[in-house]
Amino acid sequence: MKPMQLLVIGGVAGGLSFATRARRLNEEAEITVLERGPDISFANCGLPYHIGGEIPNRQSLTIQTPQSLKDMFRLNVRINCNALQIDREKKRVLVVDRISNEQEWIAYDKLMLAPGARPAMPDIPGIDDPAVFTLRNLQDMDRIIAIARPDMRAVVVGGGYVGLELLEQLHKKGLKTSLVHLHSHVLHQFDSQVIQPLQNELKANGVQTYFNNHFTSFSREGEVLKCQLARGDVVETDMVIFSIGVRPESDLAREAGLVLSEAGHVVVNQFMQTSDPDIYAAGDVVQTRERHYGQRVAIALAGPANRQGRVAADHIFQEIFAQPYPGSIGTSIVRLFGMVAAGTGWTEQALIESGRSYNTVTVHEHQHASYYPGAEMITLKLIWEPESGKILGAQATGKDGVDKRIDVLATAIIGRMTIDDLCHLELAYAPPFGTARDIINIAGFAATNMRDGLIRLIHTIPDDPAVQLLDVRSRQLVERSPVEGAIHIPFPALRKNLGKLDKNKPVIVICQLGRTSYFASRVLSQNGFHAVSLTGGIRGLGHTEKSGVYTPCTTCSSI
Amino acid sequence: MKPMQLLVIGGVAGGLSFATRARRLNEEAEITVLERGPDISFANCGLPYHIGGEIPNRQSLTIQTPQSLKDMFRLNVRINCNALQIDREKKRVLVVDRISNEQEWIAYDKLMLAPGARPAMPDIPGIDDPAVFTLRNLQDMDRIIAIARPDMRAVVVGGGYVGLELLEQLHKKGLKTSLVHLHSHVLHQFDSQVIQPLQNELKANGVQTYFNNHFTSFSREGEVLKCQLARGDVVETDMVIFSIGVRPESDLAREAGLVLSEAGHVVVNQFMQTSDPDIYAAGDVVQTRERHYGQRVAIALAGPANRQGRVAADHIFQEIFAQPYPGSIGTSIVRLFGMVAAGTGWTEQALIESGRSYNTVTVHEHQHASYYPGAEMITLKLIWEPESGKILGAQATGKDGVDKRIDVLATAIIGRMTIDDLCHLELAYAPPFGTARDIINIAGFAATNMRDGLIRLIHTIPDDPAVQLLDVRSRQLVERSPVEGAIHIPFPALRKNLGKLDKNKPVIVICQLGRTSYFASRVLSQNGFHAVSLTGGIRGLGHTEKSGVYTPCTTCSSI
Repeated sequence: MKPMQLLVIGGVAGGLSFATRARRLNEEAEITVLERGPDISFANCGLPYHIGGEIPNRQSLTIQTPQSLKDMFRLNVRINCNALQIDREKKRVLVVDRISNEQEWIAYDKLMLAPGARPAMPDIPGIDDPAVFTLRNLQDMDRIIAIARPDMRAVVVGGGYVGLELLEQLHKKGLKTSLVHLHSHVLHQFDSQVIQPLQNELKANGVQTYFNNHFTSFSREGEVLKCQLARGDVVETDMVIFSIGVRPESDLAREAGLVLSEAGHVVVNQFMQTSDPDIYAAGDVVQTRERHYGQRVAIALAGPANRQGRVAADHIFQEIFAQPYPGSIGTSIVRLFGMVAAGTGWTEQALIESGRSYNTVTVHEHQHASYYPGAEMITLKLIWEPESGKILGAQATGKDGVDKRIDVLATAIIGRMTIDDLCHLELAYAPPFGTARDIINIAGFAATNMRDGLIRLIHTIPDDPAVQLLDVRSRQLVERSPVEGAIHIPFPALRKNLGKLDKNKPVIVICQLGRTSYFASRVLSQNGFHAVSLTGGIRGLGHTEKSGVYTPCTTCSSI
Repeated sequence: MKPMQLLVIGGVAGGLSFATRARRLNEEAEITVLERGPDISFANCGLPYHIGGEIPNRQSLTIQTPQSLKDMFRLNVRINCNALQIDREKKRVLVVDRISNEQEWIAYDKLMLAPGARPAMPDIPGIDDPAVFTLRNLQDMDRIIAIARPDMRAVVVGGGYVGLELLEQLHKKGLKTSLVHLHSHVLHQFDSQVIQPLQNELKANGVQTYFNNHFTSFSREGEVLKCQLARGDVVETDMVIFSIGVRPESDLAREAGLVLSEAGHVVVNQFMQTSDPDIYAAGDVVQTRERHYGQRVAIALAGPANRQGRVAADHIFQEIFAQPYPGSIGTSIVRLFGMVAAGTGWTEQALIESGRSYNTVTVHEHQHASYYPGAEMITLKLIWEPESGKILGAQATGKDGVDKRIDVLATAIIGRMTIDDLCHLELAYAPPFGTARDIINIAGFAATNMRDGLIRLIHTIPDDPAVQLLDVRSRQLVERSPVEGAIHIPFPALRKNLGKLDKNKPVIVICQLGRTSYFASRVLSQNGFHAVSLTGGIRGLGHTEKSGVYTPCTTCSSI
């Protein structure tokens, strides 16, 4: 039998995981990998960290070579090689060698499209200035490194993951950095109350920020690049890096008549087959499904790309054992100076936009025993489906332990687990690693308390003479940040002073973090008051979501 | 209606979580908490770390006081108060105040038994020497601190969690430490190939170890305590701390005629009710069920204790909303100098003892991108049920990121997830936090590869002339640690040298970590050889379990 001809377009995550898995499954196949650039299998997620010098060795970003892949997996890797056209009828691809300019047709039995996505760029005057960059590959990185010097100014456009990594690393290198972002806060897909610590971190590190803003033109005056903002300001800088998202590299697929989504992603089935069953696609170029509701999504992340390539290879060679790609939930993480933000699954914003019902609570807790040195607060927002209690999403920020909590909750989402399950997750506890009741347990407690009617939450202090405002904080805290119009009864004195409150008016209970107000609202409710707890306490004020923010337990391991 | 009388015996984890939850659910109840010692709600998990000075402030271990609990939760806390007898007929408990020696009967409607467990001590000559300690409470801790000086010698008996924490902290304080342990390696419930890095850590830190050994007597010669070992040696030391496990404090329950397990634990139902429905029990004193097979277990850990107390309070006051305690899986973690070991669920040993079938694989991977500074290897052993693919247990060791992986796998066990689910867990990835294919994904890949017949594993090199031994490592590695009798063909040269092997004899393929031998065994199998890969490679040699140890991917994010 003639060996199967596999042709792979794209030699990074999806393409190479497909090619190497295919080889492990089939020793005979002829496998050719086309890579448009000069590097195969480079570590694109490491690029910002080499710019900042945190990854000192450029070579560590390019571990594989065409030769090493030939030696290990008998892959025919052709770098600097561009695919120009797919002839689906004759099952062949027209390819040009970008060095020699020679063209040739390469035949395939099965074709894998893993061309990735390119950085988005606005079409505005001056965008072609040599000091305006994007960051996709090692060559982009080299160009940025070649001009970035510690005494310079740099503007990053886009406060998403890569934008924040770039900001951090340029700042680390000593550049004076600014951020221009189209939305009101960084990582705009995150809900605002979770992201505040990152906003603070930008300020604390002296990053000049322009939110709800974007550039409309660039012009050069000698050494200086003048950048016009839509809201009027002009920013003078030495370099600009755009990091405002990516566009799928789907021109080839479109021209070949494959079905694309409205946004231009290649539509695939659960085995990563496109509308042509002999053509597979994986990675940033495809649209897949969200795991919970099956909504169509495009998620440009390395993990899904790698696993999609593997699924496609299994589908070709492992027929009866092949498992479908189960969809994505979009788990992601970013470090910004001393803070970490991570999220998984649905956000409140996305649920509102898709018109689905949900409940949410936000809790605060230390990452490990509060009495063990280095305890730092994590803020965790949990989102679940009201009818089933199933976890839909979570977001967290903090200095330490954020990745662990989001990974646990990503696992809970994939396992279709509920808020009741979270109450009884049995996580590893010793003082350096956690608490006897992890913040995830506490989020489960808070969520089930809401469901079971043990607490009513409000997200802002109403300006309404018909309610009583009760502040249960200590005298010291009240003196430091008084709340106008509040009756002050420290919680330990509450039971003896119930007579000071009017049973005919609702009581809005406030405290610092939302924990003591929960305790107080339990006392009040059981004494015949209509009590509502201010979510997130004073610290949470100014939030606009309907989320409940409270902590039933912080420091005492036994309560 | 007369308020309900709740009486709680034990004022630490289970008892106080019961009492405070009860108060939040019921404002009227009269809640009395009896604590035999002088401290309420102390942080018992922090004791070793105060001995070593890592937690400098003793006060941070005693956050709550009887007064603070009265102020916040209207609890009547009585310290130094011992329960002597339960009169179930009259629903009352005889109590003695240990200071005044006064006795009284206290009535209850519902009684909570949360007396904990006491450190086990062997009955051997000299055990009552004042330099022989156990560590249960702050007073034990104070006594140890009072005599431990940096120039001293100390022996820890028992290489379990607390024993290892004590060893580490005494060493940190400057004492010359020894360990006596009844089994062949520390944390004997862990499987041996995972625990080797901890054994190495003991050696690297100069801890004198006596495995498969125990003390038979102590005798004093002036300042020196002479400790006789069962295997003949005599250890001279200045102090000995026993940490060989705990015994449930169930005398009171036994005398009251409650049903106990053979090992003396109080038997409870899923709402933590003992055989007397008005008496609940929680924490180290009870026997509960393992979550997967429902086997009866006793797990002395803080997390379960806290949640059990809460379940009991819910059962009394939240009738229709009360959720049962779902059982325990025994997730646990310990740090020993620079290494961390953690585990969850079933171990291979326990499955063998209970006669259940299982499969297992062990993989190695970095905790985060290998090209990002500080990459360290984790070793992860995964255990699953062959028929269903459900995860039964996991154990891991490494310097960093071990807690996260075990927490994710604990969640997967509780969610009854399978090896297929692990392949597609979508965990948070950025270079400082993980890899595009996390070690948990890789464990899933390895497990499904085994199930699907893509790899056969062997755990040791057979001394059998009927097999061929093939070493596919590089020349450098082979020269550094040659394996006798092996044919050496570096993997990149394998396909061209298949003629050097005999198709009529099985080929045992070996490499350094077990990864390249997997690749090679795929090449051989597809070329008609009967190929078997040495699990864990050369590094894994000497292991006795049947586990497969291999890593399909280490450094390259794209393969």
